[in-house]
Amino acid sequence: MGNATEANNTAIHAALKANPKKRHIITSQVEHSSVLNYCMALEKDGFRVTYLPVDRDGLLKLADLEAGLSDNTAIVSLMWANNETGVLFPVEDIARVCKARGVLYHCDAVQAVGKMPVDVSKLSADYLSITGHKLGAPKGVGALYVHQKAPFSPYLHGGHQERGRRGGTENVALIVGLGKAAELAKMNISGFEHAVRPLRDALEEGILGGIRDAELNGHKIQRLANTTNILLRGIDSDALLMLLDQEGICASSGSACLADSPDSSHVITAMKPETHAERNSLRLSLGIEHNADSVSEALRIIKESVAGLRSM
Amino acid sequence: MGNATEANNTAIHAALKANPKKRHIITSQVEHSSVLNYCMALEKDGFRVTYLPVDRDGLLKLADLEAGLSDNTAIVSLMWANNETGVLFPVEDIARVCKARGVLYHCDAVQAVGKMPVDVSKLSADYLSITGHKLGAPKGVGALYVHQKAPFSPYLHGGHQERGRRGGTENVALIVGLGKAAELAKMNISGFEHAVRPLRDALEEGILGGIRDAELNGHKIQRLANTTNILLRGIDSDALLMLLDQEGICASSGSACLADSPDSSHVITAMKPETHAERNSLRLSLGIEHNADSVSEALRIIKESVAGLRSM
Repeated sequence: MGNATEANNTAIHAALKANPKKRHIITSQVEHSSVLNYCMALEKDGFRVTYLPVDRDGLLKLADLEAGLSDNTAIVSLMWANNETGVLFPVEDIARVCKARGVLYHCDAVQAVGKMPVDVSKLSADYLSITGHKLGAPKGVGALYVHQKAPFSPYLHGGHQERGRRGGTENVALIVGLGKAAELAKMNISGFEHAVRPLRDALEEGILGGIRDAELNGHKIQRLANTTNILLRGIDSDALLMLLDQEGICASSGSACLADSPDSSHVITAMKPETHAERNSLRLSLGIEHNADSVSEALRIIKESVAGLRSM
Repeated sequence: MGNATEANNTAIHAALKANPKKRHIITSQVEHSSVLNYCMALEKDGFRVTYLPVDRDGLLKLADLEAGLSDNTAIVSLMWANNETGVLFPVEDIARVCKARGVLYHCDAVQAVGKMPVDVSKLSADYLSITGHKLGAPKGVGALYVHQKAPFSPYLHGGHQERGRRGGTENVALIVGLGKAAELAKMNISGFEHAVRPLRDALEEGILGGIRDAELNGHKIQRLANTTNILLRGIDSDALLMLLDQEGICASSGSACLADSPDSSHVITAMKPETHAERNSLRLSLGIEHNADSVSEALRIIKESVAGLRSM
């Protein structure tokens, strides 16, 4: 796949093609835009879409999924780890519920792969999307796992490449790169968790403890090891990001994929609709390139920047 | 775009979305599989598709196009240069006819770009597809030109990348590569024609004059400078390709995109349906890396290989 967007579109498309009489899709309000925007386009084509809500911690209620499923449901598309908060959905429970009801399940695992163990032999998902640049491969390559019993029809129609599953001359160099990156990620996965979680926790606790009116966006435990997303009341995200950028800190207020959008984060809005948190939030991601010193330095700069903005 | 397949699919999709009441598409029997297979998939969705025939030279009759157009036609998709024979369609005439009838025109220019001047300011096409690896850029990147007045809606639904026209993290390195390759191709385009046409003609004349029962597939003049496709009666293409491969000559019997297909060339079948030419044809492409010596050597090997097969 050219990227995870193509993988996500393809999975949903394949399920709908296999079940032309089923016109209902279930997803969540906090999915990546490549699932949400495709679902919205499908609504214009006459499909019905249920966007499951999340609670203030970004968690999903399994009962909502169960209540939403009907004989008309063609596919459930629910992500593994949220790209803005790192919050983990209970994908094994979701897969079990879908399987019991005979509904196809697509898992967008883009944010999970490389940061925690992802094993399709243990998760009974029918489709699972990943992307290269989230695990160290170059940008511009993704993959869609399709269970051998899951129905499939191509989204890109062309030559006989990839056994007819995806037309188009393959991007061989990047495909090899994705394979190698996955191999390395698998080797390093426990080290990643071990190295990054304490740094993330230190940074997060430093912000929550050292800056007033700060509040975590997302469940404290059920979450990726490397991501933190924090509401800083009264602080305009864009202004803060500019100050941080001047000091060499790359952060974001939401999804990079919507960075040029005038819309604020749909993920934070879904979690805390009454707070305007979506315009006052800071998302920070850590990796193995960080250490205690760089975290201390980042914490100092963030504190100073917030103090500066609050004194204006 | 990830490749020209995505570009071709996207152009047709955009035209159909813009004209939901128009359910007719015109293309030709000799288009690339990324147009043909998408059209066949659309037939299953209830669209009507006219596949215009070509004559023995691979040429299109403009009258057939005019007769095929109706008020129900959403888009005409006709290629510039054929990928198997190099035969050129009269794209300026096609564009003029489409414009006069108010029908959108998509031109698959994948094979033309880099081998002849392609100027979208002179051709009034609404959509035009190109791919990287046909002009020296890496595999895995393509582009779709969309006229500023042509309707557009995304085929990949995702984030706000490429101004919302194509979701998905961009393959930045390859996009830059495509840009550079296009820049170099533009500088070298007259040199390419000048260098390669005499070599192609020498090779072609050597085969046609030196091997009995050999016949050109495709119009002699209205054709790219670098491609030759020759019917060798009684010679099994696969056997010949194996012999040539052993001697270091890379050739093909049809499209690389269908190389692993049991189907023989739909292009040659459309041109010469009664001859079985589609199983007895050899396609050779030349580039600026060739010279008179390598052409003589190739000619010698081809003659010997054919003679060997005929003596068996």
